[in-house]
Amino acid sequence: MSIAGRTAIAGIGATDFSKESRRSEMRLAVEAASMALADAGISPKEVDGLCTFSMDSNEEIEVARNLGAGDLTFFSRIHYGGGAACATVHQAAMAVASGEANVVVAYRALNGRSWGRFGLSIHDKPSAERIHYGWYTPYGLTTPASWVAMFAQRYLHATGATTEDLGRVAVAHRAFAATNPNAWFYEKPITLEEHARSRWIVEPLRLFDCCQESDGGVAVIVTSLERARDLAQPPAVICSSAQGSGAGQEEMTSYYRDDLTSIPEAEVVARRLWERSGITPADVQTAVIYDPFTPFVLMQLESFGFCAPGEAAGFVRERGIGPGGALPVNTNGGQLGEGYIHGMNGVAEGVRQVRGSAVNQVDGVSNVLVTSGVGVPTSGLVLGRDN
Amino acid sequence: MSIAGRTAIAGIGATDFSKESRRSEMRLAVEAASMALADAGISPKEVDGLCTFSMDSNEEIEVARNLGAGDLTFFSRIHYGGGAACATVHQAAMAVASGEANVVVAYRALNGRSWGRFGLSIHDKPSAERIHYGWYTPYGLTTPASWVAMFAQRYLHATGATTEDLGRVAVAHRAFAATNPNAWFYEKPITLEEHARSRWIVEPLRLFDCCQESDGGVAVIVTSLERARDLAQPPAVICSSAQGSGAGQEEMTSYYRDDLTSIPEAEVVARRLWERSGITPADVQTAVIYDPFTPFVLMQLESFGFCAPGEAAGFVRERGIGPGGALPVNTNGGQLGEGYIHGMNGVAEGVRQVRGSAVNQVDGVSNVLVTSGVGVPTSGLVLGRDN
Repeated sequence: MSIAGRTAIAGIGATDFSKESRRSEMRLAVEAASMALADAGISPKEVDGLCTFSMDSNEEIEVARNLGAGDLTFFSRIHYGGGAACATVHQAAMAVASGEANVVVAYRALNGRSWGRFGLSIHDKPSAERIHYGWYTPYGLTTPASWVAMFAQRYLHATGATTEDLGRVAVAHRAFAATNPNAWFYEKPITLEEHARSRWIVEPLRLFDCCQESDGGVAVIVTSLERARDLAQPPAVICSSAQGSGAGQEEMTSYYRDDLTSIPEAEVVARRLWERSGITPADVQTAVIYDPFTPFVLMQLESFGFCAPGEAAGFVRERGIGPGGALPVNTNGGQLGEGYIHGMNGVAEGVRQVRGSAVNQVDGVSNVLVTSGVGVPTSGLVLGRDN
Repeated sequence: MSIAGRTAIAGIGATDFSKESRRSEMRLAVEAASMALADAGISPKEVDGLCTFSMDSNEEIEVARNLGAGDLTFFSRIHYGGGAACATVHQAAMAVASGEANVVVAYRALNGRSWGRFGLSIHDKPSAERIHYGWYTPYGLTTPASWVAMFAQRYLHATGATTEDLGRVAVAHRAFAATNPNAWFYEKPITLEEHARSRWIVEPLRLFDCCQESDGGVAVIVTSLERARDLAQPPAVICSSAQGSGAGQEEMTSYYRDDLTSIPEAEVVARRLWERSGITPADVQTAVIYDPFTPFVLMQLESFGFCAPGEAAGFVRERGIGPGGALPVNTNGGQLGEGYIHGMNGVAEGVRQVRGSAVNQVDGVSNVLVTSGVGVPTSGLVLGRDN
């Protein structure tokens, strides 16, 4: 038995995205969840499932209490930072399709700037989980940007792509953000020249290649497709959903793989998403591609089959991923432009595109791909219209 | 669609249970998982799912690497300490029944004595999750025993049960442990008198009412019932599985409920387990009842319907839960007698009873109830023979 196409996202909610929310992460989570329930037209009392990131500080029972939820019959957390974004929806879909819950809130809320900067050097206590960093931190690889720069440098070397190609990704994302009033970089587009002038963070990554550190919360409501059809919004059908972890997998530092220019875990997810939904990259009109740093957008275009390996820079140059492009990517401005809510704001944008309600709406959307954290065990969704 | 009866536990593995394992938690996890796979007759390469506690220090990808697993398509963690024990199997069953994974290892490994004593006072950094403890710690309620003593005192007061009734639970568990060579208290039974002479930990809990702090690891393999039928061991069918959290739920300190003598979250789980399996308490020949402290064994006998509210002490006195009793409970000696592996050793014992291979085997076992952590959002299983 497959769960593909049996469930839907029936509601979405999001707080403002800022650098200083001036309220607790719990409040952000509950605000987003309340808005998502109101959007769906479901009473909080009906909530019987909650799913979030292991990194989220807002435990299920406190969110449930503050929401006014009923008894819970499903609660789960997924590890691996942003890799969990679509997985929260995936596991919610499993629970609903299995009859283990009826209304699941998948959520993520963080003060990623004001309560502790997200992109700072690691400074955790030693643990088995952190041992692998010991191979890299003595050489200065202590931040996400530094870990990703290694893959990026290799990718540029092997494919012939340039930092200007990275700039094209940033410019496209900022163009969408510029017309999205909810984006941090609303009305602040950048040019390729400005990208090229922005300072190095870690070569080959410049400032404008890096996502933001943001405060905010996003929640989505997963229920059965049947139920969703009777609710306030057109359902965003979960055509397929998947998690994946690949050979040689580490957290952010999978450097011992034979090839550093591809993302095996994303390929595991891609294979399952397309197989299970019967949908192909050609059937997708717009994609939400997890964008911690611009090079990973290029690499994922290849992992998910929008172009052949090594050809993403050409794809972006010739076909376009910005406004009016052949494949508009991250129409909310992405995490580079809208805010870094660990991928959950991308899930919400995928739903808007399916509904036809996005601020940068793409014409004739039937299916949207949404991806999650890169460099870690990850997850993805194919969302679609209810036909 | 329901997942009840569609999956099975095909293999179990456990390390020795000790007070000083002299090896890492990761090694304990991988030893247990390797033994469970060997028990099932499944190659590590086939493992594509991993599920554990949010409290477990052994992250999925490192366990996978050390095991020699293939690509992963399911990984999940459940919060709430021992409440996660059966939930790891439940979520594994969901993943397998949904076709999202084929062979899932559910595991828990900890050095709960030698690496940091499990039952010590809380001393965490402040977080939203810990705020509720602020109401209780100023009054000395800083340890699991102290939190549980409040419920226990009220339960004894309301039902007329006595500390001697608690002693009967301890004596029964220690009788089973005495004949289990894997138990820490092997060949060390206790008498009611010895129980009554043991020192107070927190009134009404004496030393012998408290579970142990242990080092060890346990893993079980979940796969489809169909697949399990072709493997090395007779399948322990997962007849039903459930998670539950109830109204007024806190972690260990749900004192603001109207009634402190029942366990609403266990009742949520019980209702779902019996409904989904079509099995009733009368169809169960032996139970594994999570035993952090003896009073919670009494209370769960009521939550799960083995006797009416307030009658558990009489049930234990007259019908018996020890060797030769009407309902043998925790035939491995439980966490009081065998070891405290956060409930996962109980899951393994449930499987042994279904197979007919337990050291204290009960005659004619068709179905076994297994429960999880008490005082927290929890979970349960009904395991059964493959008919």
